[in-house]
Amino acid sequence: MERTLIADLKGHVGETVTINGWVSVRRDQGKMVFFDVRDRSGTIQGVVLPKSDAIDIAKDTSIETPVLMSGMVNARPEKNVVVDKQNGDIELQIESIEILSLAQTLPFELDAELNIDTLFDYRPLTLRRPRERAIFKVQAVLVSSYREFLQKEGFMEFQAPKFVGDDAEGGGNIFRVEYFKDKHAYLATSPQLYKEIMVGVFERVFAVGNVFRAEKHSTTRHLNEYTSMDVEFGFINDHRDVMRMENRLFKHIVTRLHEECEAEFKLLGSEIPVVPDEIPHMKLREAQALITAETGADCTNEPDLEPEHERWLCAYSREKLGSDFIFITHYPVAKRPFYTMEDSDDPGFTKSFDLLFRGVEIATGGQRVHNYDMMIEKLKTKNLNSENFSFYLQAFKYGMPPHGGWGMGLERLTQKMLGLDNAKEAALFPRDMNRIDVRLSE
Amino acid sequence: MERTLIADLKGHVGETVTINGWVSVRRDQGKMVFFDVRDRSGTIQGVVLPKSDAIDIAKDTSIETPVLMSGMVNARPEKNVVVDKQNGDIELQIESIEILSLAQTLPFELDAELNIDTLFDYRPLTLRRPRERAIFKVQAVLVSSYREFLQKEGFMEFQAPKFVGDDAEGGGNIFRVEYFKDKHAYLATSPQLYKEIMVGVFERVFAVGNVFRAEKHSTTRHLNEYTSMDVEFGFINDHRDVMRMENRLFKHIVTRLHEECEAEFKLLGSEIPVVPDEIPHMKLREAQALITAETGADCTNEPDLEPEHERWLCAYSREKLGSDFIFITHYPVAKRPFYTMEDSDDPGFTKSFDLLFRGVEIATGGQRVHNYDMMIEKLKTKNLNSENFSFYLQAFKYGMPPHGGWGMGLERLTQKMLGLDNAKEAALFPRDMNRIDVRLSE
Repeated sequence: MERTLIADLKGHVGETVTINGWVSVRRDQGKMVFFDVRDRSGTIQGVVLPKSDAIDIAKDTSIETPVLMSGMVNARPEKNVVVDKQNGDIELQIESIEILSLAQTLPFELDAELNIDTLFDYRPLTLRRPRERAIFKVQAVLVSSYREFLQKEGFMEFQAPKFVGDDAEGGGNIFRVEYFKDKHAYLATSPQLYKEIMVGVFERVFAVGNVFRAEKHSTTRHLNEYTSMDVEFGFINDHRDVMRMENRLFKHIVTRLHEECEAEFKLLGSEIPVVPDEIPHMKLREAQALITAETGADCTNEPDLEPEHERWLCAYSREKLGSDFIFITHYPVAKRPFYTMEDSDDPGFTKSFDLLFRGVEIATGGQRVHNYDMMIEKLKTKNLNSENFSFYLQAFKYGMPPHGGWGMGLERLTQKMLGLDNAKEAALFPRDMNRIDVRLSE
Repeated sequence: MERTLIADLKGHVGETVTINGWVSVRRDQGKMVFFDVRDRSGTIQGVVLPKSDAIDIAKDTSIETPVLMSGMVNARPEKNVVVDKQNGDIELQIESIEILSLAQTLPFELDAELNIDTLFDYRPLTLRRPRERAIFKVQAVLVSSYREFLQKEGFMEFQAPKFVGDDAEGGGNIFRVEYFKDKHAYLATSPQLYKEIMVGVFERVFAVGNVFRAEKHSTTRHLNEYTSMDVEFGFINDHRDVMRMENRLFKHIVTRLHEECEAEFKLLGSEIPVVPDEIPHMKLREAQALITAETGADCTNEPDLEPEHERWLCAYSREKLGSDFIFITHYPVAKRPFYTMEDSDDPGFTKSFDLLFRGVEIATGGQRVHNYDMMIEKLKTKNLNSENFSFYLQAFKYGMPPHGGWGMGLERLTQKMLGLDNAKEAALFPRDMNRIDVRLSE
């Protein structure tokens, strides 16, 4: 018999159907056996009655076993209806069970609270938990809504290379690869230089892909491999055009989250944020003056925000400005990469921004230098050898418009959207100093 | 004045507009200057008349310079209308030009025939050629139509890790990375093990991302970094379900190519392929018997197809079976990875397939082993240490359904779709033994 998806069962009340799925729950109750079975479309409760031919096999069917089940879709009696739950008003009366591959006894209850090492040691199993499936469903919607918005705005997606040569940004935080003929390559810490080159080709581009940071830290914030979502586009007036684009992007993302992920946010105890039509913004110096005035901690001469100040500003923005998001602009030239455009109306400061959300920076961007001579000058100022950048510099030699963009880490965005304690929980297969799937031996 | 996209100019005849774009062509004709200007939406011809205020700056505006131009959109006199060309019936009478960043003199004419090293040495510039923009527009549509089809079929996209540990497939063809604490990591040659794990989580998954092969070959077929498009799904009957899904995928891709890329195929002198409702298929041994009978070259005892035999089969399929595509199935167990399902009805041969298209294999796939004990057995047979695969094996220990999928290289697919001589031409920034953007010194 043709398989019916679990999400479609409600249209088959009174019919015999066949489903495929995994056993999420088995509950032996007297002589009956109850199951929760899930497939990619959802979950249904099933029951095997005492006199069913399937009763013996039902008792042998372990949790997580993939099965083929046939049975009758029944409406539940009114007293047993569970409202606000998928298939809460129907039940499958199971008449046959075929075990496709019997699961071994699980090493722990899947709904137990797990410490983080167990969570990752058993990742192929723990990813099947409702909590983890919710996290990565939301993550997939974040990516697909990101892409959808940008494509509608005329952005072309491209695949950025991961192998880079000596012109790599990243300094000490870069991984080295044994390439050919005793030479080394490096792993990209960002697609920045390539997306700028691509602006010269398609004007509006984006890339979604892994980047690599050899940071020797093992904290709740660090991942040595993560997914960067990068945007770059030409013919802007200044960084404010970039901020406006990102503002509109987040409005779109949030719309899609409401359409597809309300249950997942509820399960994780988080709220889909509100995105104002105009996300508030202030210069770094204004933010520092505010923090100093309000908290007494003088940070007015710092080149950047401390984590506690980012948290303070986010709380301030939420309470006083009614926004979970806030842009901080005009970081000092010294704190930003060589390609960052200086604000000629505010010398020493850049047309750059960080986007803060729920206590941390989730995106960083701005207007870039587009003039070739200025770019050569900037490289000199940063003590970088322009010869190492000769490939990239071609884009500027042969005509680049004013342009800008941003980079945003998918895992951190997912973490903050869902209120997770650790960025690693938002990585399917987190890599850090101590782990590549399995723990690395000392 | 608000910018108008070049594709929208036809709606503004008789109006003064402002456009942004790059100068693709400048032609001085007597006292007039003609331009072709392109933005992300298309190209328009513009003219600066002898008495225009813009005539001096027009003569200083070099090819590839990004500009802001204002002027009047005029209908062309009938004799000057170029049919079948975007904006062939209108012209911009340019009244002002603002140079946004003057391009230096180009090192060669962009429409010249370039040798392959020049093509890649000057990639930031050569990517701007109509030919290269057509290639990568088609590539972007291949990816987006691929994704679109799979999402409609209930597949969840995920980001596969690139750092892998000792369980990496790939043998000698794997790149080694200096990780932490004197340890090494490796770069994934495929997301195979992860996509199988993910079938246990979401049932239907796909991934699009870079993979790395340390093959020491510099041929028209080799790229050391390329984009792999991977699919895997559960609850299949056998490899034929996988082939059917891929067949339907290609029907969708081709529909989208007709909608969006006919001009690009024309420019590149290639044809959008026809995808039959059922792509022909034959077992490897049947194919070999056919080749032997028809060509006299006995290949009946070979474990795989030679490149010339792939080409022969594709020609045969096209001429005799009316299809640019052909599936070859049942490769011997010895030639396929450990996770490949053996056909119990045809011992020694696997439920695997290659999809051949225009002379080469463009995808490889099949049904996988899903039973834990069988998987352990398979690892032994291949002399692989199951302890190195303990992480991956969890997926099977805790219940995996029958499943299968395929992997497909984006660059090769693009190459064959467009009839390019060299796979590297279908990589934006090709990496090989001798090049990472710039040529690697000896």
